[in-house]
Amino acid sequence: MDKKNIKEKQIEEYKVRTDLAIEAREMVHQDEEIEIKGVELEEKIDESIDLKITKVSIKNEHGAKQMNKPIGNYITIECELMKENDSEVQEKLMKELANEIKDVIDIANTNLILVVGLGNEWVTPDSLGPKVVSNLLVTRHLYEEMQDAEYLKSMGKVSAISPGVMGQTGMETYEIVKGIVDEVKPDLIIAIDALASRKTSRVNSTIQIADTGVHPGSGVGNKRKGLTEESLGIPVLAIGVPTVVDAATIVNDTMDNLIQAMMSHTSNANILNSLQEFSNEEKYQLIKEVLNPYMSNMFVTPKDIDSVIKRIGFVISGALNMTLHPEIDRKEITEYLN
Amino acid sequence: MDKKNIKEKQIEEYKVRTDLAIEAREMVHQDEEIEIKGVELEEKIDESIDLKITKVSIKNEHGAKQMNKPIGNYITIECELMKENDSEVQEKLMKELANEIKDVIDIANTNLILVVGLGNEWVTPDSLGPKVVSNLLVTRHLYEEMQDAEYLKSMGKVSAISPGVMGQTGMETYEIVKGIVDEVKPDLIIAIDALASRKTSRVNSTIQIADTGVHPGSGVGNKRKGLTEESLGIPVLAIGVPTVVDAATIVNDTMDNLIQAMMSHTSNANILNSLQEFSNEEKYQLIKEVLNPYMSNMFVTPKDIDSVIKRIGFVISGALNMTLHPEIDRKEITEYLN
Amino acid sequence: MDKKNIKEKQIEEYKVRTDLAIEAREMVHQDEEIEIKGVELEEKIDESIDLKITKVSIKNEHGAKQMNKPIGNYITIECELMKENDSEVQEKLMKELANEIKDVIDIANTNLILVVGLGNEWVTPDSLGPKVVSNLLVTRHLYEEMQDAEYLKSMGKVSAISPGVMGQTGMETYEIVKGIVDEVKPDLIIAIDALASRKTSRVNSTIQIADTGVHPGSGVGNKRKGLTEESLGIPVLAIGVPTVVDAATIVNDTMDNLIQAMMSHTSNANILNSLQEFSNEEKYQLIKEVLNPYMSNMFVTPKDIDSVIKRIGFVISGALNMTLHPEIDRKEITEYLN
Amino acid sequence: MDKKNIKEKQIEEYKVRTDLAIEAREMVHQDEEIEIKGVELEEKIDESIDLKITKVSIKNEHGAKQMNKPIGNYITIECELMKENDSEVQEKLMKELANEIKDVIDIANTNLILVVGLGNEWVTPDSLGPKVVSNLLVTRHLYEEMQDAEYLKSMGKVSAISPGVMGQTGMETYEIVKGIVDEVKPDLIIAIDALASRKTSRVNSTIQIADTGVHPGSGVGNKRKGLTEESLGIPVLAIGVPTVVDAATIVNDTMDNLIQAMMSHTSNANILNSLQEFSNEEKYQLIKEVLNPYMSNMFVTPKDIDSVIKRIGFVISGALNMTLHPEIDRKEITEYLN
Repeated sequence: MDKKNIKEKQIEEYKVRTDLAIEAREMVHQDEEIEIKGVELEEKIDESIDLKITKVSIKNEHGAKQMNKPIGNYITIECELMKENDSEVQEKLMKELANEIKDVIDIANTNLILVVGLGNEWVTPDSLGPKVVSNLLVTRHLYEEMQDAEYLKSMGKVSAISPGVMGQTGMETYEIVKGIVDEVKPDLIIAIDALASRKTSRVNSTIQIADTGVHPGSGVGNKRKGLTEESLGIPVLAIGVPTVVDAATIVNDTMDNLIQAMMSHTSNANILNSLQEFSNEEKYQLIKEVLNPYMSNMFVTPKDIDSVIKRIGFVISGALNMTLHPEIDRKEITEYLN
Repeated sequence: MDKKNIKEKQIEEYKVRTDLAIEAREMVHQDEEIEIKGVELEEKIDESIDLKITKVSIKNEHGAKQMNKPIGNYITIECELMKENDSEVQEKLMKELANEIKDVIDIANTNLILVVGLGNEWVTPDSLGPKVVSNLLVTRHLYEEMQDAEYLKSMGKVSAISPGVMGQTGMETYEIVKGIVDEVKPDLIIAIDALASRKTSRVNSTIQIADTGVHPGSGVGNKRKGLTEESLGIPVLAIGVPTVVDAATIVNDTMDNLIQAMMSHTSNANILNSLQEFSNEEKYQLIKEVLNPYMSNMFVTPKDIDSVIKRIGFVISGALNMTLHPEIDRKEITEYLN
Repeated sequence: MDKKNIKEKQIEEYKVRTDLAIEAREMVHQDEEIEIKGVELEEKIDESIDLKITKVSIKNEHGAKQMNKPIGNYITIECELMKENDSEVQEKLMKELANEIKDVIDIANTNLILVVGLGNEWVTPDSLGPKVVSNLLVTRHLYEEMQDAEYLKSMGKVSAISPGVMGQTGMETYEIVKGIVDEVKPDLIIAIDALASRKTSRVNSTIQIADTGVHPGSGVGNKRKGLTEESLGIPVLAIGVPTVVDAATIVNDTMDNLIQAMMSHTSNANILNSLQEFSNEEKYQLIKEVLNPYMSNMFVTPKDIDSVIKRIGFVISGALNMTLHPEIDRKEITEYLN
Repeated sequence: MDKKNIKEKQIEEYKVRTDLAIEAREMVHQDEEIEIKGVELEEKIDESIDLKITKVSIKNEHGAKQMNKPIGNYITIECELMKENDSEVQEKLMKELANEIKDVIDIANTNLILVVGLGNEWVTPDSLGPKVVSNLLVTRHLYEEMQDAEYLKSMGKVSAISPGVMGQTGMETYEIVKGIVDEVKPDLIIAIDALASRKTSRVNSTIQIADTGVHPGSGVGNKRKGLTEESLGIPVLAIGVPTVVDAATIVNDTMDNLIQAMMSHTSNANILNSLQEFSNEEKYQLIKEVLNPYMSNMFVTPKDIDSVIKRIGFVISGALNMTLHPEIDRKEITEYLN
């Protein structure tokens, strides 16, 4: 790849960076009423806690291409109160999330589940996966050690790992997970990950469930392999929460907003032309200037990110414990945990 | 204060938010050659590690008003390599910083020093102060316990505290420090704090030393009292490092850059006028939109902030240990630490 | 103090090291039925969670001398389930603890309370105090900032601090607290501390409330000042939980147990004599040998101490939030917390 | 296994619990001069930092049975100063440790190394392995991403993982490592682990290198598989540091010491008999009593364990970085690390 191409790639990257299907949908058409071929949209609302569930189904290749996401189902739970320390909201969110997960996986016919906590536990906004794993009721070893114990009958068979990131291990997450899958032979993987959003309004207030697995960013020279049914041989459910916005996205969106605001100001054709012709290349130069010397390694995050991540991790691990051990109640689950 | 005033205050706030004197200087005149009355500027460069030391002296009320900072001396050490894990650079930085501190305080005639680590240790970019305090060689209690010990003769008399932030204690930092000062009677306070910068290029690569103490932000309704010689009765040296840029600042600066870029594009008087008349009010609305619903609680920070804070904390505590215990070498100091 | 005296002091120390009044009581007479003059004992039991509350009142100097504790009231809550992750038990414990605290302090006539979290947050078994403080609903600054806010009417006025330990600050805890008391003028101090017990059976399953304040260990050369009404001018309530047993205590008690076991084995007068004449000096030598080279800096603690401390900290902060803000419910309190 | 056998097993366990070959050697004969068939002993001393290196070679089955350890080589580095914060000592220790490791592995003919950090990072005395891994220069992914980069020529090819413990993952460490080995195909494993010692004097002042891999404790019902060449198909070097003594061991050793002390007191045959006939069963009952209700989950550890673990982790990761990347100097290595 020559330098010119790398640059074009980089410029492009700042336009497309979102992990959320609902944002990909918005990027195709802001207007939800306009139908995209091969993409279905369905909404449900729980007004008691101002919660909205959106299901985006990508049905065919055409939809996949439009959305820049693989064929499959994407469920998004949005709730502004998710970031608050409100135990009632947390209870409701847990149940809603558990319900949506149960809809997607066939728990009764799944023997062993492997939960994978993606991300770097030492970088707060990236630590959601490891945090969820640390609050799971993990039981597979009990099955191995005391097969006949009465209390195991009410428990699912769960294993879990937080493999760390490539800079820590020298290995792709795919390689570690693939090795464990071949050795331990789970029937389903549930992967938890912190995502990037385009909009600060979605940060820490959105959970996405996708039955298409985990697809690493398609950055320059990125040869990383995803965690998918295709690559691992078993279904992979991905649960993700946007915890940051890339600083470059904020800068880019600011410029777009500003240009739009200016355009709505004037009817002068000269000015409109001048604004429109402001190229991607020029915008990219501005992003570089504003974020210099960091460019692609800065993110925007709220001040209380540490406590918010704890709370959302608590909601997700709670929902998973409810789903994976359906016959014991939450109180009992807690007692088994440390 | 009525609502209109609050808003104007808020709009204004996004224009002025910098803790660094060199940035305040730049905001008055980008051009360093243009003299500001009552403000002196002096520069020194160490090329071996690409380090630049700038001394800004605010000499009188006129300068203070122009700069929006109190009369006094502000020394800034800038070094891009500060954020790297380079032990040689760290050694040099420590020595440079120690030299600058020694220049400002009269260590030989100071009996007891109280180091105050400001900030919230649980919010990574705000944890610099507590981190520095945790690596200090603290000795005052040894003087109390074993007055005659030979080894104390080579040690300064140092006490330290990380008082936490108001949301944790319900008390202003000023109140806690004032209480301790009255009880323990130090002769000098050295306060360590994480700052906000206007520019990502200064984040984690700048140390500011100010003999004017610590002045909390002058936000809406802010009645907090600073840590100053005036309020505490003893001199206060402030050492600060910018670790974040407010997200609102990034957005604001992006708009300014974009408008400037557009202006340089055109000579059409209509367009120029249209761009110039884009008001603060309109810009403020755009900031609000981009950062919604967070507005003033988001910051921009690099991904590796956790390790960078550790490294810079190590440099500052090292420099303080060298300054406050001038007669023992660094190796010995380390042995006393845990 | 000459060397011989220091040694005798040290030997003695291993005999008397307990922070718990019920253990001091047991050390005078194992048999609860035997009355100690000037010491009253009262017990209450809640069988539902196997909880026992013991009130030891030291009424006069004679009792104080016998017990080696100051005149005052000591309430002990014992519950083996305290260390488990059982939310129902935690709820009950919170309420019992809140009730006992309410019995001892006159909350209606107390304006401002200062909670002091004693101990070193970086040494797990010593981190209980800081952990409790970090989960308190602290409100004093809200009173200062928005006096007239409706919601404040239902809240108590609470401030809090975790001052750190002398090795970190170079100051006695007393000095820091005294300074803050003089500046901020609270009416009552509640001090939280991790204690040492004689018995592993009491570790992490006992909470002691004492209206006599905090008295630092009376070790060799220890000149530290306690936190008491006498020293601070306002009442001090101490809440403590034993989280460790000194390794030396374990070794000492093992020897006592072994000697007793041997004595019950034999009626041979020679052997009995030989066993009895095994002196404190010899026992001290054995302790030294077994713990060499650490001697007095080792403790015995359970493997899961990290999670147990979190749970007990949660119980105590919950009880304090209920007590100090009696008019708002726990759900609301949580929402205010981060 | 019936109850009687379980108990006998448990009683026995308290007699044999050591992970160190030099302690196993001492348990066979205190006297080093007395030769054990099939076991060779060799000592080296560096007086400058009071360091002693002992090589125990178990040559055949007879030796293995006597020592209760597999055939192989065990190198022990003992240095009382290891626990101090002395950078000079740390440098020397790093070099000595690196030399010993180089002696045992054939680095020039090893392509890819996998370092495994055993233990639970959230239990301080068990967190050595994860701590070492977090300071390693891991490079395998760089080889994958930029094969031709000049700077890679001077670097070894290293991958690493901290798999967590069975209670966290539901999987045996063996299973996780075996899966990764099959997928990633390293030529050598280096496993880092925190060990238990019999003696407090060895805690945090001893490093053991063993070419026999890692053998989990042989407790009741323990079916865990070790990390060995036999089980994994590639050589496994184990590096371990004793960081705790089991509380039961302290109690047991106290009794042995006391009995011995009493025996040396008397020549009375009756007493001697009485002391000798004090059975294992009786001792076990006493241990149970002293440690009730914890029994096997308490350990003895020094107060400053947190900082000591950091320091020793720093020594081991430093030695590994020197060994695995022999052509770059330590300064450069640090720069690559975060």
